Amino acid sequence: MRVVIPIFDGLTPLDAVGPYEILRMLPGADVVFAAAAPGPVRDGAGFLTLTAQAAFGEIGSADILVVPGGPGARRRVSDEPLLGWIRRVHATTTWTTSVCTGSLLLGAAGLLTGLRATSHWSAADILRSYGAEYTDERVVRQGRIVTAAGVSSGIDMALTLAELVAGRAAAEAFQLAIEYDPQPPFDSGSYAKASQAAKDYLGV
Amino acid sequence: MRVVIPIFDGLTPLDAVGPYEILRMLPGADVVFAAAAPGPVRDGAGFLTLTAQAAFGEIGSADILVVPGGPGARRRVSDEPLLGWIRRVHATTTWTTSVCTGSLLLGAAGLLTGLRATSHWSAADILRSYGAEYTDERVVRQGRIVTAAGVSSGIDMALTLAELVAGRAAAEAFQLAIEYDPQPPFDSGSYAKASQAAKDYLGV
Repeated sequence: MRVVIPIFDGLTPLDAVGPYEILRMLPGADVVFAAAAPGPVRDGAGFLTLTAQAAFGEIGSADILVVPGGPGARRRVSDEPLLGWIRRVHATTTWTTSVCTGSLLLGAAGLLTGLRATSHWSAADILRSYGAEYTDERVVRQGRIVTAAGVSSGIDMALTLAELVAGRAAAEAFQLAIEYDPQPPFDSGSYAKASQAAKDYLGV
Repeated sequence: MRVVIPIFDGLTPLDAVGPYEILRMLPGADVVFAAAAPGPVRDGAGFLTLTAQAAFGEIGSADILVVPGGPGARRRVSDEPLLGWIRRVHATTTWTTSVCTGSLLLGAAGLLTGLRATSHWSAADILRSYGAEYTDERVVRQGRIVTAAGVSSGIDMALTLAELVAGRAAAEAFQLAIEYDPQPPFDSGSYAKASQAAKDYLGV
């Protein structure tokens, strides 16, 4: 069960680490963080460095592909070597998934044409520009492609995927292992629900 | 606003990255991932490497300290240099926090004696052995010490903390930015709620 997570400068690390903490528990999981070249990758905020263990060129297939987002994803929608790699690996996967603006990379690679898909709420129009039908659902499955909404939604996506791959008891066990019994102190987690004060703070 | 996150081999990365994605948005945030020595730190599952930018010896103070957990935290409850560093930094903080079994390190450092506190559900007895009163609440504040339950609870903890530090509008904005509108597909995120099948899967 090879799980491949491409990383790049400017990623949002929770997009990758949320699903990782669940998918690493799949039976026989072998998780590879890959980048254009092995070595350090700096996140979008600039404080956290992850290490890519493999180069994209070394990874020709995956059982599960998880494409994270972040400002670095938005900057890479014309990165043909990356998009070509995504297309080639996608041709081999059982599940191709994205979190947040990772779906823009799937879209730019031509994988979402005519499909319902989601992304970070701020990227809906860009996603549509790739021929996808944007929806604000949190986890959207279309055949073997699963897209998730912004950042934290990758946790819900990975639990959904875990049930598909390993069954309900396993997926529930993974939820218990990470004690995912969310109790957000506010109800401001979607654009539809957020207060005007929260939107004003972000300038959106 | 200096946020210090100690990391170590065997940590659970979501314990650190969940709060990080919120606290990095605090006004003026400067986040430092620190370890015994600068350089690579491998997570508990062995697939992900984070980089410490500073050595503990270089960090004498913090506004916010976030101590993550993981199997590596359990192994370090007798690591006197680490515990001494936690005590010294705690003496300078506005907020000292933990996620998951990070609270065992706060307990072993003597910071939780006589306080209500939480941890991963599987570590309740160990937490009690440090003189803390374990509770299965998700986020527990006692003065300027805030402990969170297992792994994913650090997100809820950091949102609570963000309100205390930067106010309600900011905290709600951070929740919107990471689109934290959790919709877990199962209701298996706490020991009390999990099915017997999930517990059997984990052997607990």
